[in-house]
Amino acid sequence: RVNGDRLWDSLMDMAKIGPGIAGGNNRQTLTDADAEGRSLFKTWCDAAGMTMGVDRMGTMFATRPGTDPDALPVYVGSHLDTQPTGGKYDGVLGVLAALEVVRTMNDMGIKTKHPIVVTNWANEEGARFAPAMLASGVFAGVHDIDYAYSRKDPEGKTYGDELKRIGWLGEEEVGARKMHAYFEYHIEQGPILEAENKQIGVVTHCQGLWWLEFTLTGREAHTGSTPMNLRVNAGLAMSRIMEMVQGVAMGEQPGAVGGVGQVFFSPNSRNVLPGKVVFTVDIRTPDQAKLDRMRAKIEAEAARICEALGVGCSVEAVGHFDPVTFDPKLVDAVRNAADRLGYSHMNIISGAGHDACWAAKVAPSTMVMCPCVGGLSHNEAEEISKEWASAGADVLFHAVVETAEI
Amino acid sequence: RVNGDRLWDSLMDMAKIGPGIAGGNNRQTLTDADAEGRSLFKTWCDAAGMTMGVDRMGTMFATRPGTDPDALPVYVGSHLDTQPTGGKYDGVLGVLAALEVVRTMNDMGIKTKHPIVVTNWANEEGARFAPAMLASGVFAGVHDIDYAYSRKDPEGKTYGDELKRIGWLGEEEVGARKMHAYFEYHIEQGPILEAENKQIGVVTHCQGLWWLEFTLTGREAHTGSTPMNLRVNAGLAMSRIMEMVQGVAMGEQPGAVGGVGQVFFSPNSRNVLPGKVVFTVDIRTPDQAKLDRMRAKIEAEAARICEALGVGCSVEAVGHFDPVTFDPKLVDAVRNAADRLGYSHMNIISGAGHDACWAAKVAPSTMVMCPCVGGLSHNEAEEISKEWASAGADVLFHAVVETAEI
Ligand SMILES: NC(=O)NCCC(=O)O
Ligand SMILES: NC(=O)NCCC(=O)O
Repeated sequence: RVNGDRLWDSLMDMAKIGPGIAGGNNRQTLTDADAEGRSLFKTWCDAAGMTMGVDRMGTMFATRPGTDPDALPVYVGSHLDTQPTGGKYDGVLGVLAALEVVRTMNDMGIKTKHPIVVTNWANEEGARFAPAMLASGVFAGVHDIDYAYSRKDPEGKTYGDELKRIGWLGEEEVGARKMHAYFEYHIEQGPILEAENKQIGVVTHCQGLWWLEFTLTGREAHTGSTPMNLRVNAGLAMSRIMEMVQGVAMGEQPGAVGGVGQVFFSPNSRNVLPGKVVFTVDIRTPDQAKLDRMRAKIEAEAARICEALGVGCSVEAVGHFDPVTFDPKLVDAVRNAADRLGYSHMNIISGAGHDACWAAKVAPSTMVMCPCVGGLSHNEAEEISKEWASAGADVLFHAVVETAEI
Repeated sequence: RVNGDRLWDSLMDMAKIGPGIAGGNNRQTLTDADAEGRSLFKTWCDAAGMTMGVDRMGTMFATRPGTDPDALPVYVGSHLDTQPTGGKYDGVLGVLAALEVVRTMNDMGIKTKHPIVVTNWANEEGARFAPAMLASGVFAGVHDIDYAYSRKDPEGKTYGDELKRIGWLGEEEVGARKMHAYFEYHIEQGPILEAENKQIGVVTHCQGLWWLEFTLTGREAHTGSTPMNLRVNAGLAMSRIMEMVQGVAMGEQPGAVGGVGQVFFSPNSRNVLPGKVVFTVDIRTPDQAKLDRMRAKIEAEAARICEALGVGCSVEAVGHFDPVTFDPKLVDAVRNAADRLGYSHMNIISGAGHDACWAAKVAPSTMVMCPCVGGLSHNEAEEISKEWASAGADVLFHAVVETAEI
């Protein structure tokens, strides 16, 4: 078993960097806080005897050598970046548990045939730069690097410039590495494991996603002196689209979600009807046909809503992945590890996207999950117990060592 | 008649300060651009032989002396501040036409019994600091000055600090001045005069307003892993309130408007259901009973909508004025001037709020309006013709000189 106290201490040390406003973290991608978090992580990797590689997307790869010079490494990781008002565990747990796996192997003097590479993927959250899982997406060949470098934050700063600025632009070609397997340990971010009273989620699938960014063009006009019948009200169109998205998601129950997290009104003045409204619809379901159907319905209905109001409507897909099925052998390795360790477990579908979803395109991949209190995530109040954290890390340790072959 | 070319040139000169991004202006209250606009205006007032006074709210009063030392002044003015994406005429026309009235009187050697005071009210727009018409509101005793100083812009800067910073904190006690009459000339900001092909709006009333700032509290949560039935979706509640406001306004036709210009989602990240949504509903009608009824309906319905979704709902009135009836004698003076000058005219109710609405509380007040193209205002594309601008200034000139008594 891993050292649960050491894992927890590392989690708490990392949480000191980029503190939030309500007990969580704001360590968004390519900010100074991200750079500081990366440095601390590197210090720990160095101390554990690993060698650090960094690729041109800023992803960090810390290698513990294997005994067979020809064996491909087993990759284990997640992300250290957070939401603007994020929790202390989302992503961080997966990176630091991977580090804890190596530390435990060092303590026990375990040697494996395959090297182990502890990985910190860059820009998993997609909060500052859409889409999410950007670096793993480039790694898997889904995006090209120029697209990634050109992604802009709300202030107009690009990924490429900010990566250089914080000093974590590496030289490795992205995706040049080949993987024997990829494991990612993450908090569930949903309510199922806690409700079912299970310690471990054996992740069999991940639901697919579309992020549809709508740009609605109305007529900027005075809220007081513009009669109702002369309004070209982009805000009203947005409100109707939001309600429609809710309806589409409810109509596809069970197993579908839809909502809006980001809205920009322009000029955003109390007495001006917005000339421009930009907002992003997030829809997800594990069912490919349903995902396609939801997207088509939403785009068609939105066009109809806007037309009725005379509002211009354009849609850009700023994030997408299809539903993923994880590697059955690795899924079994996780389940067997949980059984062997005596932890209660159940199969689960990931509601959130993860770097494992892209890794699965280029290597056998899977995930381990632990519960989180109230299913709450993307919230500074996100919470897990030390026992939950260690249980998942134990499972990760067993599954990784088994896959890396002693 | 006034010098229409000179008026137009001054409008174009002022428009060079705080240029917008699409041909209009961004000269928001208490910004550096506002300070620059004020300086230019002061230079012009000095050149016209007027003496400048500034009060503790930053309102500028340029006096042309009268012949009777005991006669109260006739005040004429509007505002030089703009929306973030404002037009070149909203407010500015009223200040510079007042200046043109004095310039014309100088040209013609006209002396009046009552002094003339050309006035630039501070923070009329309310875009940076709510409520609108803040300085005239303090002048009329509607707000106290500490309230006004404490008003914050979206970055948290206060009115008091910003007024000091730009160097336009005056020493005069606000509201100490007594007025014989107050005139304000403004573009209509609505479509009626142009549609009816009239040169002059004789403004008899101004509709009343409520700005209701809603703060909705949801549960910040992951858009992907949070099942629909566990969401406490403040954004969805907002969308329902927007639709409801539209319905309430449509239900009170004719003669009522309702809409939303400003929305803040928090944390405003694509994959986070908002924990907090703040937005402002703007409702207006000239009918006092209707205004009260609309507010009550909206607050009751919003509470019901939020309760059904489990969303917390609090409402703060951040702007308010009751419908105003302008002084019948001054209204007649405007109408008679238009007749005398041979301009087509009609009675009109102001759709927008104006400093004249507060001035009307402490002095006989009224307004003159000219058309604007397509009724468009609070839009950089706001447009008027030179002929429209001069016609209104001619009417203002006649009404003011008559009221100030030669
Ligand atoms: N795990 C996680 O929250 N990833 C961010 C991408 C997503 O929205 O699912
Ligand atoms: N005239 C004008 O646009 N004033 C701003 C206050 C309002 O919203 O009516």
